[in-house]
Amino acid sequence: MSGSSIGRRLVLTSFGESHGRCVGAVLDGCPAGLRLSERDIQPMLDLRRPGQSAVTTQRKEADRVEILSGTFRGRTTGAPIAMLTWNRDADSSSYDRMGDLLRPGHVDHTALVKYGGHADRRGGGRFSGRLTATHVMGGAVARKLLDAALGVRTVSYTAQVGGVEMSSEPSPRALRSIYRNDVRCPDARAASRMRELILAARRAGDSLGGIVRSVTTGAPAGLGEPLFASVESELARAMLSIPSVKGVEFGSGFAGAAGSGSQNNDTYEVRRSRIVTRTNNAGGVLGGISNGMPITMNVAFKPVSSIGMAQPTVNARTRRPAVLRVRGRHDPCVVPRAPPVVDALVSLVLADLALVGGFVGPVL
Amino acid sequence: MSGSSIGRRLVLTSFGESHGRCVGAVLDGCPAGLRLSERDIQPMLDLRRPGQSAVTTQRKEADRVEILSGTFRGRTTGAPIAMLTWNRDADSSSYDRMGDLLRPGHVDHTALVKYGGHADRRGGGRFSGRLTATHVMGGAVARKLLDAALGVRTVSYTAQVGGVEMSSEPSPRALRSIYRNDVRCPDARAASRMRELILAARRAGDSLGGIVRSVTTGAPAGLGEPLFASVESELARAMLSIPSVKGVEFGSGFAGAAGSGSQNNDTYEVRRSRIVTRTNNAGGVLGGISNGMPITMNVAFKPVSSIGMAQPTVNARTRRPAVLRVRGRHDPCVVPRAPPVVDALVSLVLADLALVGGFVGPVL
Amino acid sequence: MSGSSIGRRLVLTSFGESHGRCVGAVLDGCPAGLRLSERDIQPMLDLRRPGQSAVTTQRKEADRVEILSGTFRGRTTGAPIAMLTWNRDADSSSYDRMGDLLRPGHVDHTALVKYGGHADRRGGGRFSGRLTATHVMGGAVARKLLDAALGVRTVSYTAQVGGVEMSSEPSPRALRSIYRNDVRCPDARAASRMRELILAARRAGDSLGGIVRSVTTGAPAGLGEPLFASVESELARAMLSIPSVKGVEFGSGFAGAAGSGSQNNDTYEVRRSRIVTRTNNAGGVLGGISNGMPITMNVAFKPVSSIGMAQPTVNARTRRPAVLRVRGRHDPCVVPRAPPVVDALVSLVLADLALVGGFVGPVL
Amino acid sequence: MSGSSIGRRLVLTSFGESHGRCVGAVLDGCPAGLRLSERDIQPMLDLRRPGQSAVTTQRKEADRVEILSGTFRGRTTGAPIAMLTWNRDADSSSYDRMGDLLRPGHVDHTALVKYGGHADRRGGGRFSGRLTATHVMGGAVARKLLDAALGVRTVSYTAQVGGVEMSSEPSPRALRSIYRNDVRCPDARAASRMRELILAARRAGDSLGGIVRSVTTGAPAGLGEPLFASVESELARAMLSIPSVKGVEFGSGFAGAAGSGSQNNDTYEVRRSRIVTRTNNAGGVLGGISNGMPITMNVAFKPVSSIGMAQPTVNARTRRPAVLRVRGRHDPCVVPRAPPVVDALVSLVLADLALVGGFVGPVL
Repeated sequence: MSGSSIGRRLVLTSFGESHGRCVGAVLDGCPAGLRLSERDIQPMLDLRRPGQSAVTTQRKEADRVEILSGTFRGRTTGAPIAMLTWNRDADSSSYDRMGDLLRPGHVDHTALVKYGGHADRRGGGRFSGRLTATHVMGGAVARKLLDAALGVRTVSYTAQVGGVEMSSEPSPRALRSIYRNDVRCPDARAASRMRELILAARRAGDSLGGIVRSVTTGAPAGLGEPLFASVESELARAMLSIPSVKGVEFGSGFAGAAGSGSQNNDTYEVRRSRIVTRTNNAGGVLGGISNGMPITMNVAFKPVSSIGMAQPTVNARTRRPAVLRVRGRHDPCVVPRAPPVVDALVSLVLADLALVGGFVGPVL
Repeated sequence: MSGSSIGRRLVLTSFGESHGRCVGAVLDGCPAGLRLSERDIQPMLDLRRPGQSAVTTQRKEADRVEILSGTFRGRTTGAPIAMLTWNRDADSSSYDRMGDLLRPGHVDHTALVKYGGHADRRGGGRFSGRLTATHVMGGAVARKLLDAALGVRTVSYTAQVGGVEMSSEPSPRALRSIYRNDVRCPDARAASRMRELILAARRAGDSLGGIVRSVTTGAPAGLGEPLFASVESELARAMLSIPSVKGVEFGSGFAGAAGSGSQNNDTYEVRRSRIVTRTNNAGGVLGGISNGMPITMNVAFKPVSSIGMAQPTVNARTRRPAVLRVRGRHDPCVVPRAPPVVDALVSLVLADLALVGGFVGPVL
Repeated sequence: MSGSSIGRRLVLTSFGESHGRCVGAVLDGCPAGLRLSERDIQPMLDLRRPGQSAVTTQRKEADRVEILSGTFRGRTTGAPIAMLTWNRDADSSSYDRMGDLLRPGHVDHTALVKYGGHADRRGGGRFSGRLTATHVMGGAVARKLLDAALGVRTVSYTAQVGGVEMSSEPSPRALRSIYRNDVRCPDARAASRMRELILAARRAGDSLGGIVRSVTTGAPAGLGEPLFASVESELARAMLSIPSVKGVEFGSGFAGAAGSGSQNNDTYEVRRSRIVTRTNNAGGVLGGISNGMPITMNVAFKPVSSIGMAQPTVNARTRRPAVLRVRGRHDPCVVPRAPPVVDALVSLVLADLALVGGFVGPVL
Repeated sequence: MSGSSIGRRLVLTSFGESHGRCVGAVLDGCPAGLRLSERDIQPMLDLRRPGQSAVTTQRKEADRVEILSGTFRGRTTGAPIAMLTWNRDADSSSYDRMGDLLRPGHVDHTALVKYGGHADRRGGGRFSGRLTATHVMGGAVARKLLDAALGVRTVSYTAQVGGVEMSSEPSPRALRSIYRNDVRCPDARAASRMRELILAARRAGDSLGGIVRSVTTGAPAGLGEPLFASVESELARAMLSIPSVKGVEFGSGFAGAAGSGSQNNDTYEVRRSRIVTRTNNAGGVLGGISNGMPITMNVAFKPVSSIGMAQPTVNARTRRPAVLRVRGRHDPCVVPRAPPVVDALVSLVLADLALVGGFVGPVL
């Protein structure tokens, strides 16, 4: 398997470039019999779409998904599902002006080394956040599959931006209204402050990072194939493949690492004849295997690398110092657009593990 | 590929159980011509070995590695390298007494669900930290390969225990003396406090977690196969497969996510005709591809689950509440034994990516 | 990896259905810098295209390939290359009439069992020979890569139809004119007899099978990853994935199995300072590794299952006996259209092994 | 996955060399709960063992299998099953004498090129037929799994040696007594002639090849993952990975390719409320998916390359012509020892596909 695919039984292969003809995905291994049409995918893509509010890039893409294969009479057939969306509003002009200056924090330099100058740099090319649309296409199918077959549900939301955190864990009701505000944070007061910070960063020609929190309920106990395909190792791999992600933690994560076993262990009890834990510092995973509790994860996004402020850099051709101001249309903060991407990859990983583990058969 | 293997071109397959006959590994895909004998592996295994000091478990294993295949006349042949160490000091008595009580924080419950009661629970069975010896066997070969072929070097050390952190980044000299103290922290003063905390936790029947920091120098720019086999996604997967690890971050990681782009971007300059960055908030990886700067990573270990204190739990058979005191010989903190394991997996991942990316050929 | 992909480093993922919107492929892992446009792929697709002569099906597909991603300024970028051709002339009417009768020799029954009735049966759906167009798309890229990087060339031709064989091994000149006749047999006299047999079978409502012979020159010694990714095991896997293929043999194959070692061993000599063998009963592969001699292979195609003659069968729904006459447009013999498909898969396999073995780097 | 492993969900990794310390295998992905001990593996290994009769090599290996991991209290645990047998009777003396002369038909030359002279050549090293013992170890487990979970049974036998074929298809009774004669051919009269030919070849310092036929009953309809992991493509890959195998055909295979569709199509009927075919020219596989009929396959073995007769060759170091007489203990014909190897790989492939296809769950 080469680098553009993820999964063992449910395999997503991503293709396309930011300013090429399209971005698309092939999802292989989806069981037959799942009701599926573009209407199941479009809403999730819409949530990721740029140009929706003041806190995101002004690039506008209709992002109309088309299913090219793998369904018949409104259901999946067991054949690979190819999906794509054609690129429309690709403005490559600002990239042409950039020439040989290496943008700090960008893939310019590493792609140059790795692909010998042949990479498509327009709009970030293959490395653009736009490629996460391909993850969302596949993830929307995986999410529907998980829900239909097992009742698994994933919800992800903005938990921190520019150092501003939610004041408390969100209520179930708040989780249902994540997409009410344009930063996608269930805590309205924190959301309002995050929004101000993002707009201030935009005005200053700067950018911000943040944290997306993901909570999955309904996952059966027993998912995960230790040692190296554990729930956590597969999720971590998926998260760190999202552009700008630099960290991931499960359950109590880094904070738990500073505590003691007596604080961090989740003790057991029986509730409605199910064995559950009172707390969930494990984040729903013990020994790499899901334990039936919610799977919780924090994902750290670095601040967007493309900033309008002047930055010292180097000309890759002449090797001379230079000063760069990145132009073009950029998100001042990608975090508000990231929750559907995290949802998508969580769904892909868990659906894959459900298939590998025999929790879902080849026909629904 | 099933769950016991990791890698694409350099594949480690781990086998064995804590109280079974042995723990071992098969490493497939190592180039031919690398000088290799048990003497290259034993020192790294020794660093991981239990029973070496007051801060670790009192189980004593000689952990003598034997190479069973894949070498001839002191060099690798290109054939799979099978290695193992026989288990000697396996005392299963305390586990027999445990019966059906689910140990909080342990894999008892999830393994029961997943393997229908057939898993070998003795000493943690397949899920024991002891299995990391198999990673170290393979990792020692990968480390030698990386050093011989590319001059890559990885050093990992204890950066935090029980909330006590190092006061500053270690000097190169301090990094060379990590194994001088038994907590493997290059900051002698912090090491001393960590040691006290660990011993206090042991006395209290409690346990601690912590953070291992890993720094790899000499890695060429261009490693990593975006999107889904990036340096970070492959390292994250490997780290989260280590028992007790619950989080990972690269470069400025979670802290960087709270900052701004202008702070976090690493600006370029030319030094000795190489393009380098002035800071390294990216942790040596941009767009999933190594950029030639040190690859830096923090790995969060949860506090050891096995604690002597009484804990409420459930009897898996009767489903009645119970109180458990975990006996047996346990580490009060695994962090001091973890650096060689992190080193090993970093080496395996980077050697694999070096082979995949054509940086190392089939014959040295 | 699921069933729609082949390859380790150069991975082809096939999608589409015979009467769906399109058939397409994603090729991941192609090195950057290869000159590539639709003009490199179209000629090979044209050779496979239906409706070209009296010996093939009358379905007419322009089969215009479009490259959707992975190239920039006329060269590959290292990103996945998505390609497709839209279906135009899909006449599903005869399939609708077929109803629940199981066509002997077809996938009707097995697809029904495996996909629970959800498979797209129109025109053979996912199982149609039309899907080999996706192999040809990827194979055309692989062929160009092999030629550009290593000078490897594959030529495949019809060696037997309906029991009629070539009288002798073709001359190099004859191999250059394979596509002069519509059965693609380099022996003009045998080609003429094959043609007559095919037309007679068509008139009788019957069909024929045959053998495609493939010869690859210029492959370097050292390809293949024993034990399970040997040149022969990978080629065999690829060949047996072509619809209608039921057998494969390398070098002297089945005939050699009836002989003795003293006859079958290829003795060595030095020619122009290269170590070569005098004969090539090994078909260019020893111990699963290429030896630098031509890689030779015979591939057996069964007679086409769709025949116009009345055949006893069963109604899958009622489970009652029935009599079936398959209508629709079918090839009376697929062998004349198979050589480019065999070429394509040979190229994909050898290019993959060349990348895995370090014979080709990530940038041309 | 590198070259020493086969399978997707049930993965066999083979290690060891002919004259090294041992040959062994790790089988990962076997469901938990299967009763398993050395007694389930030893009989199948014994059938493959050398030194049993006049028709095989005189090397004597007790080939005592030891299970090192993956079982507990007589059942599989879901953890990887490591197995090995120590090498005892390794006489490398004749190989030392061989020096730099390339043995015709052997891997000497290709291994030299591929592994730069570092391969272990003693007794064929990694490429020895002895390595098939590792396939048998894993295959014995797979066979038991298939039988216990699904009632699948594979029987393989010698169908041709030196051009002598069986006079007819064997009766069920004859199939039960395959191992009564030392050539493992169910037709006693043909067996007797084969035996004479083999002994004559031995006396002449020559060798013979032959065909092994394999028949699998009880396989459920629906196995196989088209396009590239079909039953036939996976079996073909496995067969062509056996040393000396140069061809494979399914059902009517090459002979069927010379016939017509009306002859070769298997018509359907309902028997005991099951849909079956009257004939089985398809060899139990349609469209790459098993159809519930017996899976039949012929496997062609070339004559053994090691022959005592003088053969012209080349000195790899000096590049001068030379004459070679291969000494050492060799089989004059490997076919009589091959049926358990074919059985083993058929079992591994089908068990893997059964797991991939959801026919067998993670716990028995």
